Amino acid sequence: MSARDRYHKCVRNALIKDGWVITHDPLRLPVGKKDLYVDLGAERLLAAEKAGHRIAVKIKSFVGQSEVDDLEKALGQFVLYGAILAEREPDRTLFLAVPHQVLVDIFDEPIGQIVMKHQAIHVLGYDPQAGEITRWIP
Amino acid sequence: MSARDRYHKCVRNALIKDGWVITHDPLRLPVGKKDLYVDLGAERLLAAEKAGHRIAVKIKSFVGQSEVDDLEKALGQFVLYGAILAEREPDRTLFLAVPHQVLVDIFDEPIGQIVMKHQAIHVLGYDPQAGEITRWIP
Repeated sequence: MSARDRYHKCVRNALIKDGWVITHDPLRLPVGKKDLYVDLGAERLLAAEKAGHRIAVKIKSFVGQSEVDDLEKALGQFVLYGAILAEREPDRTLFLAVPHQVLVDIFDEPIGQIVMKHQAIHVLGYDPQAGEITRWIP
Repeated sequence: MSARDRYHKCVRNALIKDGWVITHDPLRLPVGKKDLYVDLGAERLLAAEKAGHRIAVKIKSFVGQSEVDDLEKALGQFVLYGAILAEREPDRTLFLAVPHQVLVDIFDEPIGQIVMKHQAIHVLGYDPQAGEITRWIP
C-alpha cells in the first residue's frame, strides 16, 4: 500500500472511530472545465453536539522535501478547495488532516501561529499509529 | 540562465520600467528558527499616485506539471508569506507575479474568479517576452 493510501485509510478509520459517517470518498468538486477532488466528505449523523455537521477533509502526510514546502502546498489546497466549497456547499467545513507530530512541529510553532492569526484555517491532527484523531483546530 | 532566473530578471526589470525601485532582492523574512524569502521587495519613490507604496513580489512561472498544482503552490505561498508580512511589515503588500497568459488562463477563468471572490489576493501579470507588467489585480 502506498504511503498516500495508508494515510488515507488511517484518517478515514479515525473519523469513523470519532463518530463520523464517510459520505464521499473522494468528494468531487467540478469547477469550470476542471474536476478537483477533496479526499473525504463526512457527516455527523448521531451525536447531539454536532448533528448534521458536515466536513470535507484534505489529507496531508507532510513527507515532502521540506516542512515549509509541504506547508505551502497544504495552505494552497486549503484556500483553493475552501473557496470552491464556500461556493458549492457553504455549510460544509474544510479541514486539513495532518499527522499529530506535524501539528506540534508546525501549527504550535511561530510559523503556524502566525498563519492561523492571519488566515482562518481548520486543522485536525491524527495519530498515524493509533489511527485516532488527536486534535481539532479550532 | 535557468528558467527561474530568467523570470526573476524579467519581473525585476519590468517593475523598474514601471517606476519601482528594487529595495530587496530577495526580501528575507525570518520566522522562528526558519528563514523564508520573498523574491523581491520594491518601493515606489517618485510617482505621486503611489509614492511610498511598498510591495513584496513572489515570482511564479507556472511551468509545473499542472496548472492546478501550480495554483495550489502559488496560493499557499501567498497565504504563508502574506501572513508573515502582515506580522512584520504590515504596510507592505504582497503580490504574486504570474506570466500574463497564466493570468488569463487561470485568474480570468471560473477557478480563479472563485478563489478571488473568497480570498483577498493580489496578482500582477507580466509579459515574459516584452518584459513589461501587463496588469495589477486589484
